Amino acid sequence: MEAGMTGRDGGADIGPIGNSPVVILVRPQMAENIGTTARAMANGGLFHMRLVAPRDGWPLERAWRSASGADRILESAQVFETVDDAVADLHHVFATCPRPRHIVKPVLTARGGAAELREMTDRGLKVGLMFGPERAGLDNEDMARADALIRYPLNPAFMSLNLAQAVMIMAYEWWMAKDDTPPRALMTNETHVATRGELDNFMRHLIGDLDECGFLRNEQKRAGMVRNLRHFFLRGEVTEQELRTLHGVVTELSRGRKARQGGK
Amino acid sequence: MEAGMTGRDGGADIGPIGNSPVVILVRPQMAENIGTTARAMANGGLFHMRLVAPRDGWPLERAWRSASGADRILESAQVFETVDDAVADLHHVFATCPRPRHIVKPVLTARGGAAELREMTDRGLKVGLMFGPERAGLDNEDMARADALIRYPLNPAFMSLNLAQAVMIMAYEWWMAKDDTPPRALMTNETHVATRGELDNFMRHLIGDLDECGFLRNEQKRAGMVRNLRHFFLRGEVTEQELRTLHGVVTELSRGRKARQGGK
Repeated sequence: MEAGMTGRDGGADIGPIGNSPVVILVRPQMAENIGTTARAMANGGLFHMRLVAPRDGWPLERAWRSASGADRILESAQVFETVDDAVADLHHVFATCPRPRHIVKPVLTARGGAAELREMTDRGLKVGLMFGPERAGLDNEDMARADALIRYPLNPAFMSLNLAQAVMIMAYEWWMAKDDTPPRALMTNETHVATRGELDNFMRHLIGDLDECGFLRNEQKRAGMVRNLRHFFLRGEVTEQELRTLHGVVTELSRGRKARQGGK
Repeated sequence: MEAGMTGRDGGADIGPIGNSPVVILVRPQMAENIGTTARAMANGGLFHMRLVAPRDGWPLERAWRSASGADRILESAQVFETVDDAVADLHHVFATCPRPRHIVKPVLTARGGAAELREMTDRGLKVGLMFGPERAGLDNEDMARADALIRYPLNPAFMSLNLAQAVMIMAYEWWMAKDDTPPRALMTNETHVATRGELDNFMRHLIGDLDECGFLRNEQKRAGMVRNLRHFFLRGEVTEQELRTLHGVVTELSRGRKARQGGK
């Protein structure tokens, strides 16, 4: 397999998809967090990284080592001296912030923020998502540069999020905001869900053999027992392949019984 | 501040909330990932950790060092030799799995899975969420122990997730499945959104001063200019506190102009 196909060696083949938000890391401290942030961005379809005054300068080799192949995001990252410079060409900027105090600002959930970002990018606007430094978070001057704050609904007894985890949640919600995967689907791969006719065919086989061996000999209970078996086989979505296996199970169990009876 | 209140020093005061899913890490390899997983669990309100055959044994000091205070989850973690042992007392088990092949299984999104887990725990059932080892993921035998697989909708060109990131997404969706935070709300802290009367009062002040200084002297354009200013001030939700500031701005600008005129 080619590296570009597997996305594992020397940088994955991840190119920007459409108009996506810029992730702005304000005064990031740890190179490793910049790398894991790039990985989380790639997971959720965010490709544009900007760094405002990274503590240890840029580029930093340790970022690449922790990016798990999201090299292209790091390679195209842009560095700015101030937040104002980093957001100058954007139309809207949201800032993640766990506990804002004493300010008047719209506060969005991660999901609400992602939906609004999608709506803006669909209109062709350039948008940004601002994340603060690891320990202190964004300061008051940073937050005054944001249209709105994003605050994740999470356990209030334990809100402390790693930087890459915070980015992961927004990247995930960004992806989910346009995803239409059904919440539940039966993956059948090479087979298909059995039709009612295929199931009836199996039920006749099973009941015939059960009649033969005497399991259903109590005439009063017979109808109820058959119904209960039918209830059970209808509870999930049995597949055609599984019915073939079950036909085999019934046949083999019957054959074994008959062989034992014949051997008596 | 007390350590128990801040949740930062020597273990946060995080206690189980209700009946929550057990997180089962199958053959985890890195102690650090067990620690960061505990942190992600605490973020999303998951408290019960089980480890199946951890590669380097248990307990591992490095797990505590990366848990950022989620010590209680690590301290109460249970260790099992097999997946069957780890799930024996549970009613339902979901397994996260990026790319299942050749099997017949319900596949849920993270959001769909979280909704079903909530529904089950609300009925008093004990449920588990299974995560595979870092490199290989769950094997076929592990997956045969799960009711359903959870597959995250994420960028198909870059699906590789760190273990703690995978747990973070499920923990976040678990929390969100019962969260009712409005997607957008104006945080006003000490003030309130201005009433229309408060805004009209400011508009009268502004327009009066603009009339006085001659800015609205073009009678043909006057009405349109006043309407445009009104449109602008109505676009967001201006607060009573901001209107007081704006009253001050208008008054001070007018005073400055008058002083300059008086000084001529």
